Amino acid sequence: MLARLGGAAEADAVRRRLAPRSDPLPPRFRVERRADRKAIEAWWQERESDPAAIADPATLDTASLYGANIENMIGTVKLPVGAVGPLRVNGLHAQGDFTVPMATTEAALVASYARGADVITRSGGASAALLADGVVRSPAFVFADIGEAGTFVAWAAERTEALRAAAEATTRHGKLESIEPFIDNDVVFLVCRYTTGDAAGQNMVTIATEALCRALLETCPVTPRCWFIEGNFSGDKKASYLGLITGRGRKVSASVIIPEALIERRLHVTIERMLDYARVAQLGAMLSGQIGAQGHYANALAAFYIATGQDAACVAESATGLTRMERRGDGLFMSVTLPNLLVGSVGGGTGLPSQRAALELMGLAGAGKASALAEVAASLCLAGEISIMAALAAGDFTRAHHSLARGRR
Amino acid sequence: MLARLGGAAEADAVRRRLAPRSDPLPPRFRVERRADRKAIEAWWQERESDPAAIADPATLDTASLYGANIENMIGTVKLPVGAVGPLRVNGLHAQGDFTVPMATTEAALVASYARGADVITRSGGASAALLADGVVRSPAFVFADIGEAGTFVAWAAERTEALRAAAEATTRHGKLESIEPFIDNDVVFLVCRYTTGDAAGQNMVTIATEALCRALLETCPVTPRCWFIEGNFSGDKKASYLGLITGRGRKVSASVIIPEALIERRLHVTIERMLDYARVAQLGAMLSGQIGAQGHYANALAAFYIATGQDAACVAESATGLTRMERRGDGLFMSVTLPNLLVGSVGGGTGLPSQRAALELMGLAGAGKASALAEVAASLCLAGEISIMAALAAGDFTRAHHSLARGRR
Amino acid sequence: MLARLGGAAEADAVRRRLAPRSDPLPPRFRVERRADRKAIEAWWQERESDPAAIADPATLDTASLYGANIENMIGTVKLPVGAVGPLRVNGLHAQGDFTVPMATTEAALVASYARGADVITRSGGASAALLADGVVRSPAFVFADIGEAGTFVAWAAERTEALRAAAEATTRHGKLESIEPFIDNDVVFLVCRYTTGDAAGQNMVTIATEALCRALLETCPVTPRCWFIEGNFSGDKKASYLGLITGRGRKVSASVIIPEALIERRLHVTIERMLDYARVAQLGAMLSGQIGAQGHYANALAAFYIATGQDAACVAESATGLTRMERRGDGLFMSVTLPNLLVGSVGGGTGLPSQRAALELMGLAGAGKASALAEVAASLCLAGEISIMAALAAGDFTRAHHSLARGRR
Amino acid sequence: MLARLGGAAEADAVRRRLAPRSDPLPPRFRVERRADRKAIEAWWQERESDPAAIADPATLDTASLYGANIENMIGTVKLPVGAVGPLRVNGLHAQGDFTVPMATTEAALVASYARGADVITRSGGASAALLADGVVRSPAFVFADIGEAGTFVAWAAERTEALRAAAEATTRHGKLESIEPFIDNDVVFLVCRYTTGDAAGQNMVTIATEALCRALLETCPVTPRCWFIEGNFSGDKKASYLGLITGRGRKVSASVIIPEALIERRLHVTIERMLDYARVAQLGAMLSGQIGAQGHYANALAAFYIATGQDAACVAESATGLTRMERRGDGLFMSVTLPNLLVGSVGGGTGLPSQRAALELMGLAGAGKASALAEVAASLCLAGEISIMAALAAGDFTRAHHSLARGRR
Repeated sequence: MLARLGGAAEADAVRRRLAPRSDPLPPRFRVERRADRKAIEAWWQERESDPAAIADPATLDTASLYGANIENMIGTVKLPVGAVGPLRVNGLHAQGDFTVPMATTEAALVASYARGADVITRSGGASAALLADGVVRSPAFVFADIGEAGTFVAWAAERTEALRAAAEATTRHGKLESIEPFIDNDVVFLVCRYTTGDAAGQNMVTIATEALCRALLETCPVTPRCWFIEGNFSGDKKASYLGLITGRGRKVSASVIIPEALIERRLHVTIERMLDYARVAQLGAMLSGQIGAQGHYANALAAFYIATGQDAACVAESATGLTRMERRGDGLFMSVTLPNLLVGSVGGGTGLPSQRAALELMGLAGAGKASALAEVAASLCLAGEISIMAALAAGDFTRAHHSLARGRR
Repeated sequence: MLARLGGAAEADAVRRRLAPRSDPLPPRFRVERRADRKAIEAWWQERESDPAAIADPATLDTASLYGANIENMIGTVKLPVGAVGPLRVNGLHAQGDFTVPMATTEAALVASYARGADVITRSGGASAALLADGVVRSPAFVFADIGEAGTFVAWAAERTEALRAAAEATTRHGKLESIEPFIDNDVVFLVCRYTTGDAAGQNMVTIATEALCRALLETCPVTPRCWFIEGNFSGDKKASYLGLITGRGRKVSASVIIPEALIERRLHVTIERMLDYARVAQLGAMLSGQIGAQGHYANALAAFYIATGQDAACVAESATGLTRMERRGDGLFMSVTLPNLLVGSVGGGTGLPSQRAALELMGLAGAGKASALAEVAASLCLAGEISIMAALAAGDFTRAHHSLARGRR
Repeated sequence: MLARLGGAAEADAVRRRLAPRSDPLPPRFRVERRADRKAIEAWWQERESDPAAIADPATLDTASLYGANIENMIGTVKLPVGAVGPLRVNGLHAQGDFTVPMATTEAALVASYARGADVITRSGGASAALLADGVVRSPAFVFADIGEAGTFVAWAAERTEALRAAAEATTRHGKLESIEPFIDNDVVFLVCRYTTGDAAGQNMVTIATEALCRALLETCPVTPRCWFIEGNFSGDKKASYLGLITGRGRKVSASVIIPEALIERRLHVTIERMLDYARVAQLGAMLSGQIGAQGHYANALAAFYIATGQDAACVAESATGLTRMERRGDGLFMSVTLPNLLVGSVGGGTGLPSQRAALELMGLAGAGKASALAEVAASLCLAGEISIMAALAAGDFTRAHHSLARGRR
Repeated sequence: MLARLGGAAEADAVRRRLAPRSDPLPPRFRVERRADRKAIEAWWQERESDPAAIADPATLDTASLYGANIENMIGTVKLPVGAVGPLRVNGLHAQGDFTVPMATTEAALVASYARGADVITRSGGASAALLADGVVRSPAFVFADIGEAGTFVAWAAERTEALRAAAEATTRHGKLESIEPFIDNDVVFLVCRYTTGDAAGQNMVTIATEALCRALLETCPVTPRCWFIEGNFSGDKKASYLGLITGRGRKVSASVIIPEALIERRLHVTIERMLDYARVAQLGAMLSGQIGAQGHYANALAAFYIATGQDAACVAESATGLTRMERRGDGLFMSVTLPNLLVGSVGGGTGLPSQRAALELMGLAGAGKASALAEVAASLCLAGEISIMAALAAGDFTRAHHSLARGRR
């Protein structure tokens, strides 16, 4: 399994390949913030590569639209978008039959989600509920000793209202929900949790927390040896047990009860067999050390996040949670619960042309739509779990990939 | 933090919103495998939405190129691509100064990676080494009892060569590296590990493992009550401890020693302060239950995977690993080790026009380039760790986001 | 590594050995609650074994003292107790130089802790602070659907005071600190956290939570399909990330700064070398998926819990946390933080003769001493970390075991 | 939940309490290796405490028997032992109806296990199988760079036989099973796995690995900057995912199918209800970040380890694994799988008088019995899971504790 580093005999050659090189330095580092035709064309002219596929005419025409979202822009990458649905969602916030855009380059993926969505819709739709929301920043403070750490925590606890005011002064939409201290001897993490309105809110909470910290440090009788706006405790863009347990972003659950007839006709499998698989899949997740237990939220979330201008890096954090199956009457209950959805209907990439169009396809662009967006995202994950687990339970999984992916090449 | 479900008074209203609806069923489910102008135009004509941003003329002209990568295609989403580099990599496989494309909609991200890349290059480049590779499938077999499970495992162990032959007959590039059984009483998972040549290899190992299982079951004296091609043990598209410990996909490590002067001049911080942050960041990761400890591999990987036609859903699995910092002489040693990179230079979305162009920018398109691609990906993660940790250590983090992100809106 | 189940050829033999046997049933099950000489003697008379070592005269004389702590008593097992100390503790609650009893059968263990305690004491003592306390029970409620789950949570949140009253009516010492709901679709866990006075408190919180649940269910407009007093969420006697993050039982931190001269003279190692080991040890813990990072809290806690009448099974839960080392001036800072100490100075086995004597050795028997007991336990863990990590860093580890353990046989 | 450190006003008082104290130093540190009447009596004479309960006459008479197991001996602690059984085990190694000794001070525990054992025995006994064994040491080596780390790994891989010879020369019973390298950039952990005969084997593998490392370093062309006999990767006495996935010590599974009538008559509950609880309990374990999913192995293992002279600190490592329940025909299948049992029938405390007597009660003292001992331990865990889960499912849990524990006080 190991070690392409070669045998001992090749040690010198390896060392030479890996050593730093003092070749002439490449041109000086410069970050180009403008995104316009001229800058892009100039960039490509210095190179031998063909700009056609990335810096195409339409991109050059609209380059300035991307200026607030990227630096050193050299064009655009185009991902095919497939439509899934209608996906019926009966949510606290999302109500209706949605056509869901998914951007992916993996064959069979859209077909699989379409199958799952069809089953959900024919079962009356997915019940979906936003259970909680709150994006977290966790600044860290290092003190001289545990005594000072304790003083600091007590001081902060006695001034929550002033800290809230300082934080909320930086944002129209963010609200501080709670500050919870975590102490490891002389180090204190403050877990600052905010609701973020219709934005995913990662920048919003950073700025608010910076203000909160400065307000706190200005008056506090003890001064940290050092402090950092993020102590890597919040789980930002990383799967974590903190996220699983306390949530980060929007926590949403979606479920459906699928009639047995539908399972047999559309999924070519029985409830019994689905439950057999569910047991094994949960076992596999637990024994291999996954966080939660699910089939594949990542497929849904990556394709949905990319299509709708969300931060695709948040897939690392969002793709955790729990899928459950149970016999319920003569149907099959299936649910997904995702504690860490980071989605917004405003901000980030949601205003870019194709991304905004994708949101509009669902009627979920702009203010007031983030909660519904999160419920649709969870329902889409549910569609995926239904389809993939049915394929695995029925023994169709390989065949589907074979014919849809490799078969077409 | 909790429960947007409302008080007990609203219980009935909530229940009504969440209940299944038997409204008239939407049109029958159909998966469209063709990706051509006509099918796409027909789809949009049935809707009120404006197709311009997604089904633009250039996409319609080239639609058929996407046919092997998507179903129900309705157009493309365009993500801006920024260039980072030159990033000098002294790898076992990657050697040179690379211009790395990153697709993202998050402001400040490309600028941050460009800064990190500049520091690496000025330090002589990143040493990078592919340490192992092996993609895993883990079929599961459920037996009548532990005795039969034991017989099955023994049978498989005695026939490794025949199983290898069956698996490898399905693929030109995949090689079976090992089969390791994992028993939980009457359930057996077989951890089948393959090298996959220049492909990421997820489909390849599925097909090979299906053949392996069928060959095994054909002769084995005990018959499982049921079996599944994937028992959810492999960690496919999920962060897991199995992946951290044994690797899945390509395991790569990259490191650099940065001279103190460079840290001060370019990153506006001292080594001491970087080490202070490193200690806190590792503490935060451990105490919040992250898998490994890192700043933000997800940002690099999502942007790199999307730009180069990789499977973006694999970010969920790939964005784990360990970042380290140590004083080394009068410089700062920094390393990243990622055990689960799922990248290929062929297959998946790597052949699509803009994605292939992105690979060509680095000279890493096509056969023979996957190992180098993995080393560049790890080096890019290293660039990000340098820059983000320096920003956090220097107290620049919020300011950078403020001016680059919010400031421009 | 695998499978003592034998080859396929032995399958039948294995199956026969593992099959249920319908041999004549042994005598009917009976639980003997009395613990007295007569019952014990009768038990041994039915057997061929020699009762001398277990049912010795002194045990028979005092058997009735054990009656509230065991059923089916057949005697006592004797574990040797070694004394460690004086261990100087400068705690919020524990103040003084303690002689700490440790019960173990592992050679070299007491010597190692004695060495660590000596170093602490010569450094001026361990600073130790109880940071939090709160034992958790987590009843689970299963509803018809997510809507009812939400109603239930809202109902509970609106009645915290009544629920507190119901819980606290069952106990003189337990106080309800908080109730936090955790929802997974139609299942609700209520994380009920209590302070428990001077008892470890596991039974106390069970009884209080039973009352709380009954009070809640009596009035709540929705009725669960089923509910359980413990939904296996609390981490009772199991290492868990919930415990690491939120604490369960008493959370204590202890630290010391050791002068370099002392490290060299007593531990035969340098600060630099200790820090080298600390880096590697933390790496090892993270990469192998441990909860927190430490050397060996289990050795200290098992020996201390057994000697002082604590519940030794709680070692599984208590032996998690974090050890840190840093250079501080010209000394070495070391700290331990244990979030899950389950200790009491009353209740459980603390009243049994030898256990109470062990507590009295420290002046920590009876009411008002539990917090100090927890601080001494953490300081003892610190002593162990100092000694074992120094042995590993100095290369003494094997030698110490060799001469103290095997060498004496 | 937090912070007994007091408000900011008390900061100075807190700091004073926690500060190092330079009071006169206590008597010089000395480790007493002799365990005899004279040394013990001398120790007590220097103190005011009453020696009666710890340094009782019988202990003084036999003190020298403990000399190889403890230092600074001051007497013994006595734990009551309860008998559970007959517990019928149909194991690969253990065959028969066992009377199992459990040492605990927790009321109700023995009664609960006795109930579970009775149900197992009436169901025909527990099928139990040792699935694997192998104790791990994981020395760590720190190199100048990743190139040297690679050379080292290659060198070790080419010399496995010589390393095996060096390791096995130190032990009559230990056999090296495998050496697996784990690389994080310039740090290498070697996971050395051994079978250890009838001993638990922790010291044996330390000594063997020391020899292995020295043999390796003597010839290897690259020299580590530093190395450590244990890099904290092995999971020794700590719950870890490495242990769950690869096993450490003996991996054993035990199972039983309980007829429905027995469940109703003896456990006062139905299969349906047991399955309801099993679902919730697995959910609770997954969502709170436990390693595996179980009710309470720790209770069984602590009581069994203490009674039989095992290392009780290993409970921290052993009390992980997975409990499963499924309907099987008209019975209930239950299984436990424990990957990390550290038990021996020789060595450690197994030769002490009362501990040896406890082993003899089961006919499992001395050479050739360790595998059977591990199977009995797992079967005992199964008994506990049956009883506790039934109590929780039936709603008896609180009542049982109330009447057996508090009720008797």
